[in-house]
This record gives sequence, structure tokens and C-alpha cells, in this order.
Amino acid sequence: MQAHLTIQAAIEQVNNWGRWGADDELGTLNYITPEKRIRASQLVKRGMTFSLSLPFERFGLQPPMNQRLNPQHIMLTSGSDLLAGTQPGQKGGYGYADDMIIMALQAATHWNALSHMFYDYHMYNNRHCSLVGSEGATKNDIVVAASPIVGRAVLLDFPRALGVSWLSEDHYITVAEIERTLSQQAVHIEPGDILLFRTGHMTRFLSSGNWSEYTYTNAPGPRLEVLPWLHERQIAAVASDTWAFEAIPSRTPLWLPIHAVGIVYMGLMIGENFLLDEWASDCAHDGVYDAFIGAGPIPFPGAVGAPVNPLVVK
Amino acid sequence: MQAHLTIQAAIEQVNNWGRWGADDELGTLNYITPEKRIRASQLVKRGMTFSLSLPFERFGLQPPMNQRLNPQHIMLTSGSDLLAGTQPGQKGGYGYADDMIIMALQAATHWNALSHMFYDYHMYNNRHCSLVGSEGATKNDIVVAASPIVGRAVLLDFPRALGVSWLSEDHYITVAEIERTLSQQAVHIEPGDILLFRTGHMTRFLSSGNWSEYTYTNAPGPRLEVLPWLHERQIAAVASDTWAFEAIPSRTPLWLPIHAVGIVYMGLMIGENFLLDEWASDCAHDGVYDAFIGAGPIPFPGAVGAPVNPLVVK
Amino acid sequence: MQAHLTIQAAIEQVNNWGRWGADDELGTLNYITPEKRIRASQLVKRGMTFSLSLPFERFGLQPPMNQRLNPQHIMLTSGSDLLAGTQPGQKGGYGYADDMIIMALQAATHWNALSHMFYDYHMYNNRHCSLVGSEGATKNDIVVAASPIVGRAVLLDFPRALGVSWLSEDHYITVAEIERTLSQQAVHIEPGDILLFRTGHMTRFLSSGNWSEYTYTNAPGPRLEVLPWLHERQIAAVASDTWAFEAIPSRTPLWLPIHAVGIVYMGLMIGENFLLDEWASDCAHDGVYDAFIGAGPIPFPGAVGAPVNPLVVK
Amino acid sequence: MQAHLTIQAAIEQVNNWGRWGADDELGTLNYITPEKRIRASQLVKRGMTFSLSLPFERFGLQPPMNQRLNPQHIMLTSGSDLLAGTQPGQKGGYGYADDMIIMALQAATHWNALSHMFYDYHMYNNRHCSLVGSEGATKNDIVVAASPIVGRAVLLDFPRALGVSWLSEDHYITVAEIERTLSQQAVHIEPGDILLFRTGHMTRFLSSGNWSEYTYTNAPGPRLEVLPWLHERQIAAVASDTWAFEAIPSRTPLWLPIHAVGIVYMGLMIGENFLLDEWASDCAHDGVYDAFIGAGPIPFPGAVGAPVNPLVVK
Repeated sequence: MQAHLTIQAAIEQVNNWGRWGADDELGTLNYITPEKRIRASQLVKRGMTFSLSLPFERFGLQPPMNQRLNPQHIMLTSGSDLLAGTQPGQKGGYGYADDMIIMALQAATHWNALSHMFYDYHMYNNRHCSLVGSEGATKNDIVVAASPIVGRAVLLDFPRALGVSWLSEDHYITVAEIERTLSQQAVHIEPGDILLFRTGHMTRFLSSGNWSEYTYTNAPGPRLEVLPWLHERQIAAVASDTWAFEAIPSRTPLWLPIHAVGIVYMGLMIGENFLLDEWASDCAHDGVYDAFIGAGPIPFPGAVGAPVNPLVVK
Repeated sequence: MQAHLTIQAAIEQVNNWGRWGADDELGTLNYITPEKRIRASQLVKRGMTFSLSLPFERFGLQPPMNQRLNPQHIMLTSGSDLLAGTQPGQKGGYGYADDMIIMALQAATHWNALSHMFYDYHMYNNRHCSLVGSEGATKNDIVVAASPIVGRAVLLDFPRALGVSWLSEDHYITVAEIERTLSQQAVHIEPGDILLFRTGHMTRFLSSGNWSEYTYTNAPGPRLEVLPWLHERQIAAVASDTWAFEAIPSRTPLWLPIHAVGIVYMGLMIGENFLLDEWASDCAHDGVYDAFIGAGPIPFPGAVGAPVNPLVVK
Repeated sequence: MQAHLTIQAAIEQVNNWGRWGADDELGTLNYITPEKRIRASQLVKRGMTFSLSLPFERFGLQPPMNQRLNPQHIMLTSGSDLLAGTQPGQKGGYGYADDMIIMALQAATHWNALSHMFYDYHMYNNRHCSLVGSEGATKNDIVVAASPIVGRAVLLDFPRALGVSWLSEDHYITVAEIERTLSQQAVHIEPGDILLFRTGHMTRFLSSGNWSEYTYTNAPGPRLEVLPWLHERQIAAVASDTWAFEAIPSRTPLWLPIHAVGIVYMGLMIGENFLLDEWASDCAHDGVYDAFIGAGPIPFPGAVGAPVNPLVVK
Repeated sequence: MQAHLTIQAAIEQVNNWGRWGADDELGTLNYITPEKRIRASQLVKRGMTFSLSLPFERFGLQPPMNQRLNPQHIMLTSGSDLLAGTQPGQKGGYGYADDMIIMALQAATHWNALSHMFYDYHMYNNRHCSLVGSEGATKNDIVVAASPIVGRAVLLDFPRALGVSWLSEDHYITVAEIERTLSQQAVHIEPGDILLFRTGHMTRFLSSGNWSEYTYTNAPGPRLEVLPWLHERQIAAVASDTWAFEAIPSRTPLWLPIHAVGIVYMGLMIGENFLLDEWASDCAHDGVYDAFIGAGPIPFPGAVGAPVNPLVVK
């Protein structure tokens, strides 16, 4: 039986501060080498693509009234103005439409930057939290992740492995279950991989048509004990079809211990609210659970997280 | 000598309405086949990645006071709040940062959707402009482009071919110049390619540190005459390091004739404000001007354009 | 028994187009004369003030996910940044806080502009609806109302007159009930008055702590039949503690007939979501139902409505 | 000759902490008594109204690219949509327009809340700056000022008194100049008055049509020495036609010493960017420099400042 891992012990086991130099802002993305990308490109065998991004919409997964605003899409001008004859420069029905967005950067499918979390008043690589003030993150912002996230993705389809539609809210994913699922899927993981955890939690809310209880509530996922396993295998990034990647409640004194230890000490790139269903169906069909992935966030300087449209190609 | 091409003649030459069925919303992206993607993946030989996205920032390329708002990045909470002791749930310096964005969707690096432009009150595939109203585009929105844009990118580095830092504002790119540049770069184009036009115009403004005269002003680029050439070669998408892809002024009765004819009739996917400099330097160094590209826009339902972080891999 | 009033008959009875000239944009606000304001000022006898404005907050009265966004108050910098030592120019604890707002202009307490409504494709004073396009209202915008709304307010406290806490959703206020309430309150109305209709509907939702069913749903209020009565008495403006002033459902072919006929033809200034409870309690206490009022909207050029903090003084 | 006043000496002279109790959040607004309002109402003799609010617009007085965003007015739907036939529920040209705003709360005409400034890490009435965090001000927010600001306004028209169009940037207003101007205008001030300082600085920028050098730059106004004078006379509030009320540069170690000492210690309500020209012309014409004023800010809970449309009635 695995002993309960304390926060402090987890920190000691996975700490990457200084590993890639005092100036490093990439954390586990350092595991993605050029060679890794070359091998990943060889996984493109059918030329099929899958977007892992949710629609970014007003009817979204943030609870009503929350400060994390769902994407508000607003037209600045549209075909209506053209018809009304009020667009400047129009002639003969020549015109245009234009639009804008207002949203919390972590309201939909996104990567967390390494400046998203603090523990002991510090963020990744021993940087003080005062480096993230009202003008944004002066270190560890999301821009550094704009180009590196290209490599091999491996899907872990837990509910399909268990023969259920989705994991229940109180299901937590153990190391043993990860290894059993990999084995069942006949796929091996390697250093530099990007692991996509499918819990079916998003499938469940999509099927209900109501997100109001999705974010900030209990969710299936891995617990802190999984971090050392990810660390030893040199996983470059993880993401899931849940709002926080990790199991909630966490059974630790912290609400989100994988955020605290993983992001702050390990420098782990964590993606949230990835939509994995279509790709997962395809994987179940052809039995191939790895693929090429390109998943660069939109580079907002100073941002502590950013939207991404992750593209999987197989 | 090439005769001047009228709007009407251009429409007749490049019209793709109905070509892929009455329901089609993809336009020229249909040229990207699975086989194309497989071959494109074989271009990954060094495992290098390049993001073609500008930083999305307040000090951006839209002119002050314009309705197209530059990205306004605003912190919702930060390390300052953690230090002040005002974050809920904090203990022992455990806390987080969160943020939001307000921006015009076409303020920085983006793809135009096929609902962005109208001519004769219609958009691509014979759809009336009233399908784009205050709730957004009900047809031809950007979401359809979320997954397909994965394939082969070919860089056309015009200023480097000419031995200049950038094309002047009044330089327009002819078919002959495109073919000469391809030849000089020793690269061939094929159906389904994504062509990236580097004019150096963005390089010029980046070096000046002042964007205030960049958008809505004269710019180098191709004129309408280039459209039939792109059409015949079945190019899947184009993009440039300028604000509107095409040469301005256009020498036609329309301000943006490639937008009108290309987007509306040809269904051409056009990307704007792509940052090509780093990749271009690399191409000049290794002499390889084609690469694998993944460039899926953030899928905002109803949007007539959307931010993208295009990733080139070679 | 009063015969049912048709839309067309109501239009004919209350039409003010041209009454104050072809250039007029004030509508019924023209009834507020300087003499009226002088007399109104003489109602200030105790020096007490009442704000009729709701708190403008995120937890507001627009339903979740609606395009009419509740006020989103966001800090740009705060005392936290001062404590963290990250504010420019700070020394010895000298610093500041700053903030912003994002909101639909009619999300909380507001006046409708005369450009808010159209009927037969026109707005007040025979102006075509194409004068209100994507850049806002070029005529009849809210700015014209910035200074005139200073005069005499008369409260109509219907639930108190009936001895109930609030009118039920399906209660509609007749002319007879208005006159009975005035009589019961021992107050007379005069030309140029601003009438405040208290239904208790807001009281009910405030007491429930949940606005989610408040806006866009049934509500008590006057029906179309009341418009000619307001017209004959030369009422300058009306407002209520409901989201749309009028009774919903309306028993006419239009959802909001008072909006259509009153705003478009009569040029009636209508205020919505006014918080009348505190003032009403005071009126019940001292038996004085009229007061001085100053209620100028924030002047957003082109706006079709705007927030207001109406101040009543008695 | 008046000796130079140090920050510390000024604090000692004007400190109002505890004066109105430990719970007070109103500061100098306490000077406005009911009796004061009654007497002020008697100043309404001609029934004329003047709005002291600037238009709130995109082409506003905040410098481009600043985090303090000028008001962005955006239509949600308009007459164009009605014409296009895309509004829900429309029939026979029956439809509506709706809109929204995005803006920094202190971008245009506004009151500062007593939570806007900190000195020695504290705000008014000995409250720690940590009470103003990412959710806004939990004490001293703008909501407390929603109803009290109704009373007597006195205009100080400095440039007119000097026979110039506007005070130069480096002009600072002394106590002697205030008293001379009052005398020249034949008006006396009393406890509880609201003093409006007209410098003509805004007139100058309005006449130039270009705000880009207006905010955050040098401006005419009173220096710290004026605070004790305001304190002794029990002035309830001050405002001006400049961006910061006070003279800049300040000749003290602090950039904005009146903000620091006046707001923090004295609890002085300060208004900025008030448009005084039209009222001032009227005062010059009739020789009456006092008036009734109602100037309640829009009550955003937690806000450290808020827009206001101040209405003067004479």
C-alpha cells in the first residue's frame, strides 16, 4: 500500500529548481527535445487532425457571476450594418464584419503558465510572488511556452479502459491505474511526452448541457502521489478534460496540491478543459493512442495562463 | 504585359461557390488532404519550432482610439494579493494569479473567417450577409477552421530575395516576382500548400518601435492579379506580415479587392499580422523554405476571425 | 369599461413627432420648464437625500449568460500591489488603487434613450432606424438627456396603497388604480412631473437574494392604456422598480407596447430598475410623496441608454 | 510669506481620522448637513441646469495604450439588425438597440473614493491598504457617496478673474488667489460647500482637439498649502477641470501630495475632469457664482472611484 505523500515530501521528490539553470522559465517543457519532435512527426500516418479545444463561448464552463468571465463574443460591425448602408466605404454590397472578445484567460481550454501558482510565496525556479503584480507576470509568463509545445501526445482514456462513460466525481486516479491503462491501450510512454488524461468528466457535463456545477467543484483526477511518477518519467506536460487536472478533494491540507507542488516546484506545464472525446473515439477505433501534437498558447505578455487550440495529428 | 484584372473578371476566374457542395464552409482549406498532412509531417527533420505569433499586447498594432481594441491584459488577482494576505484559502504562502483579456479578435495575429467579408451582400458559398448579425456569424464562422489547418507551409521571403530589409509601402508583388522568388529559394509549391508572404513590413515597424501608422495604411503585398495564380495552384491558405495581406492601395475601385474576391468567391483563408522573421532567418540559414505547420485558430463560435499561434516545425 | 387600445390607436393618441420641432431629441423632457424646476426646488424642506440607484454589481439582475452583461468590476491595481512593493513611484507606503468596469449600459439602474426602440423601422421624431448602427446612435442618443432631468418627482407606491408587500407578477396597473393611489397619497400631479412607479417587484427579488428570474420575465406594471393618460397630463418621464416599466405580458401583439408607442411616438423618457424602497418608506412616514429630483444619465455619446444615480431630495 | 508646508505638517493640520467616529467612511462629506441642502435649494432661482460631465468617449483624455482605458462604447444590437431582419421577436419594424461600455472608472468625469489613495500603507480613518484587494475596496468604497453629495456649489473661475483663457501649466493657485477670486466674484464660502476650481486647462485641450498630453502631465492647480485652508473652512468636496485637481509638479517629495494628505488624512472628496465651461459662462453673465448641485457617483460596490454626471441648478 502506498503511504500518504505529504506536501513537503512531494516537494523534495519533484523539485526542479535550478535543474535547467537559474534563468529557466520552461520547466518540464525542457524535456521536449528536437529529437523528440522528429520522432513525434513520424506518428502522422493517416493525416487526420483533432482540435482538443472547447468552443469558447458565453454559455461556458465558468459559474455565473464568477470573476472568471466566460468568453463574451461581441460584434463590432456585421452584415446588418452593410444591409443598413451604414458601413464606411461600402458600395455594391461590399463590406465586412468585425468582432471582439472579453474573457478570463483560464475560462476555457488553456495552459497554466508557471506564474499561475505560488507556494511559500514563491513560484517556479525560486522566484518571489511579487514578480506577478498588477501589470502581470514579469517572469514565468505564458509567452515562453508559445513555441516549444510540439511533440508526442499520449492519451490515457480511463473511462473507456474501465468500460464506463465517465469517472465519478470521487474517483481518483492512482499510479497503478495509469500503468494498467497504458498496458491495456498497448502504449508506452517516454521522456518528453505530453500526457492527456481523459476522465469523461467533461463528456458528462456536455451531455447534461449545463456547466453550472463544473468548475470549482469536485472532480476525478490524479492525486499528489502521481507527481513523483510523472517526474521520474520526465513527462513534459499534462492536461485533462477537467477544470483543474487533479482530483478534488485532494486529501491534503491544500485544495490543489498538484498545482502547488507540480507547477511551483516541478515546473510542470498543466493544461485544463481539453476536449478529448473525438480523438479518444478515434483512438478506440484504430487502437493507436499516441499522436503528434502542436499546442502553443496565444502569447499574451505577462499572462499567467492562456487559451490554446491544441491540434493532434495522427 | 498582364492586362488589368477587373473585379468581375477576377470573380469569374476564381469562383469556388458550390465546388465543395452547397454546405461547404471550409473553402480553400478543402485542398489540405490527409495525404498532404502526411507528406508535410515528413518535413520535420531538425525538430525546431517557430511561433509565428506576435506578442498580444496593449502596445499593439491597432491605432489608438480605434474600435479595434488592442489586447488589454488585466490581472484579476496576483502575487500582490497573496502577499497582502487577501486571497481566500491561502496558507503558508500558497496562492495563485489569474487574469483576463479584452481585445478585438483581429487586433493581432489572426485568421479571417469566411464570414469576415461580403460582396454584393453575400459571403462565401452564396450566403447572405444577414447571416452575420449581432449574435455573430451563423455560417462560415471561424470554428470550422479549428482543426483543418495542418499541412505544409512555404515561406516566400521577398525582401531577402531582393537583398533589402523590407519592401517599401508602394511595392506590389506580382506573379512574376512570386515565381522568381520561389525559384531563387529553390522551392516548389504544390496543391494544398499554405503560403506565407514575408514583406518585411512588420520588421520595419518592429524596428521603429511604433505601430501607430501600421494598420489601415498603405502596405506592400500582392494585387488582385495574384488571385487567379493562387486559385490555379490550389493554394489552401495565405498569410503575411502585414495587416491586410494585399497591396494597399489596390488600384481597383475597392479598397481591399483580394478580401472581396478571395474571401467571398474563392473561399480563401487569409491570415494577417504573422511574425515571420525568426523562421525566415532560419530558412535563409539552412536554405529550406518549406515546413510543417499547425495553425488552428481559437474557436470562438460566431466569430468572423480569431487569434492563432501558428507553429512551424522543421 | 375601457375598450382595449390597439397599437395603432395608441400611436394616434400620443404621437409627439414634430411637436417640438423637426430637430427635437428631448421628447417629453420638454415638459420640464425652468419654472417647474424652481417650484420643485421648493420641495426641499428637510434636506434629506435618497439615491434611487441599485448597487451596480456582478451579482446583478441580468440573467447568467445573457449578452447584457452585469457590471464586472475589476481592479487595475490595489493596496495589495502597494504592500508588495510593485507600484511605480511608491515610497513610505504612498500609493493608490484604480479600477475599471465592463457592463451592458442597461444592466442596472438606467434611462432608456429615445434611440432605444424602433417601430415601423423608425425611432422618435420620424428618424430611421439606420441612424443607429454599429458606431451608436447618431440621433436621439442619451447625451441629450444629460442636463434636463431636474424637476419634481412623484412617487406612486402601489403595494403600500394596497397593503401588500409587492404587486404580483400578473398585476397590471390601470388608470383608475393610479388615480386612486394618488388620491390615497394625497398628492396631485402636474405637467412636467417625473412619475416613479413602485410595484414592490424589486423588493421581492431583493428579499429573495436571487435575481435569476427577474429580467425578461413577467412583471407588474401599467399596460398600454396608461399611455394616453400620461400624455394628456404631460408627464415628463416615468420610471419603476421593474426591468421594463410596463406590465408583462402586455395583452397586445407586441411584447413591449409601451416601449414601442411611448418611446418611439410619444418620446417618453423611461427609467428602469430604480430602487425606490428607502424613499418610499420615508414617504409613508411623513406622508409627503413629492420631492425634488436630479437624475442625469452618464453621457456616453451614441448610447441608447445609460446608467444613472437618481437623487431625490426632500 | 507663507513657509513651505511639509507632508508631515500638513497631515497634522488636517487630520480628520476619528473626527466622525471610527466607523466613518464619508470624510468631509459629513460637512453637508440637511440644513445646508435646504439653503442650497433656495439658490434655484432661474431653473437652469448645467451638466458638468464630459462626454464619455473612446476619443478621450486617457493617453493611448494606458491601462486606464478610455470608455469603449460598443453596440450589442442596433437598427441595422432590425433592418436586416435578424432581431428576435421583430415584426413590422418593431425592434430595439442595446449597448455596453468598457472603461476605467476614473477615465473621465469622476469622484475619487476615499479608498483611492494610501499613505504610510493606510487609507482614510486609519484603515490598512490591505482592505483594498483584487475584489475591490471593502471599506471607503464609492457607494457611501451615492446619496450625500447634494448641496451648494461655488465656482472659482480663476482664468476669468485673471482675464486669460486658461491658467498656464506651471501656474499654481495660492490661498491668496482663491480669496482674491472669491472677492472679485462677490461670493462667500461657507462650511459644507463644494468648491469647483476652474483653471481653463480643459478648455485649452478641448480647443486643441487633442487629449494626448492631458493626463499624467503638468497641470495648474492648488498646492499642498491650500489644504489647511480648505480644512479650516470645512469644505465638503472639491473638483476641477484638470486630471488630478492639484498643481503638478507639486514641489514636494510626493507626486500628488493633496491626494496623499487630503484623501487619506482629511477624508477629502475630490472630483476630477469636471467640465465647467458652460456653467462658468453663465456665472460670468449673471454674476451668480453659487448654485445648487447634485452629484452622486454611480454606486459600484468596491470601487475606488466612479463616473458622475454632476448637475448644477441655478
